[in-house]
Amino acid sequence: MIQIIPVEGMKMVMPGDRLGVEIVKALERNGTSLADGDIVVVSHVVVSKAEGRLYRLTEITPTPQAMELARITGKEPPHVEAILREARRIVRVRGEVIITETRHGLICANSGVDLSNVGDGLAAGLPEDPDAAARRIRREIEEMTGAKVAVIICDSHGRPFRRGAVNVAIGCSGIEPIWDRRGEPDLYGRILRSKQICIADELASAAELVIGQAAEGVPAAVIRGYRFKPGETGASQIIRPREESLF
Amino acid sequence: MIQIIPVEGMKMVMPGDRLGVEIVKALERNGTSLADGDIVVVSHVVVSKAEGRLYRLTEITPTPQAMELARITGKEPPHVEAILREARRIVRVRGEVIITETRHGLICANSGVDLSNVGDGLAAGLPEDPDAAARRIRREIEEMTGAKVAVIICDSHGRPFRRGAVNVAIGCSGIEPIWDRRGEPDLYGRILRSKQICIADELASAAELVIGQAAEGVPAAVIRGYRFKPGETGASQIIRPREESLF
Repeated sequence: MIQIIPVEGMKMVMPGDRLGVEIVKALERNGTSLADGDIVVVSHVVVSKAEGRLYRLTEITPTPQAMELARITGKEPPHVEAILREARRIVRVRGEVIITETRHGLICANSGVDLSNVGDGLAAGLPEDPDAAARRIRREIEEMTGAKVAVIICDSHGRPFRRGAVNVAIGCSGIEPIWDRRGEPDLYGRILRSKQICIADELASAAELVIGQAAEGVPAAVIRGYRFKPGETGASQIIRPREESLF
Repeated sequence: MIQIIPVEGMKMVMPGDRLGVEIVKALERNGTSLADGDIVVVSHVVVSKAEGRLYRLTEITPTPQAMELARITGKEPPHVEAILREARRIVRVRGEVIITETRHGLICANSGVDLSNVGDGLAAGLPEDPDAAARRIRREIEEMTGAKVAVIICDSHGRPFRRGAVNVAIGCSGIEPIWDRRGEPDLYGRILRSKQICIADELASAAELVIGQAAEGVPAAVIRGYRFKPGETGASQIIRPREESLF
């Protein structure tokens, strides 16, 4: 059996906070201690806040390109300017949606720039380097608890062919994000030829069942009882390079 | 806390089997009884087997189009013929991958025609109507146990921009697949404008952490402790219509 445990009662995160420490403290207050093999999934918003990756929208001067895109999409020009600063390129614009490729290579809406749960007049960009953030949080947790854990940083992304967003892994440490099952036998002994499963994304989705997106105030979850392959390749390897893309 | 419980020790599924009944029996043998609010996630392969949706590859005569596609992709011609029979259109062909739109409107590799876990010389198509299959299984479970449950039928799909497949919902009953959170306040009272979460896909991904894809012999999982919105819109509404597509 697998358990998904919400990390409840965390304090509001401020720039400079050590998230690994805050997560362990909140869990202890709830009577939970971390154990070897636990996976800690952390919402990117608190990572961005702890890193101080915030835009004060009133202090941003939009470029002419941002003004034009704001006119087309109906978004506020400073918000569009923040989106453009976080983007490597614009992939699509339709209706009020701006799909970009972020500096990290992620294809997502609004470069992941979030107006939710950051406070009035503020917007949060994605963490500077989500894999590095996952490593940092993992180190903090392991130093405090002595438990060998994995850490995943998550964000909710839309999909081209399916409605609704799902949570995916944008950073990870201590876990191989993709489980390559090619070469294993099936129930009938037939060898699997093409099964690669993005375990990190499935864990991120599972965690969101307790993390939520609105006023829950649950920025992290612990997944217990899932045996994963340890590794340090990072979530950046989940991003499909453009030359591999079928679309 | 949320629990993900594997449905272990199910018998090999045969055409005509009533899956809801078999799932309840297997759970009872393991000492688990279903309760109101449980979500039962079932792998599409056993649904297809129970429906007899199997192709005997030696008995299939490939069309010239299937022969040509088999030559390009290196697949066996009868396998390609089964893929084409399940497809509404071919979306992309590259390397050994054939991406199609299935009769249901799903965009996926090989029309979802699976050679794994069905036995030698056989291939399984997707269930005829996955939402109807979910309703049928739910009715069987509710009649046997008296518990009000939701049922999701899952399959693992690749994604355009991300490596590795993840489990998604191709059928559901008793649950609203998409949670529309627009209009709710965030932590700071800011109203969410664009948050729609595909809960059914997240639940399908969570379930795969115990279901697996190779020789595990775990074709279903129970997710307990997640409060969902009851509904009967079905997973077909998750499919983004072509006119809404950004890609």
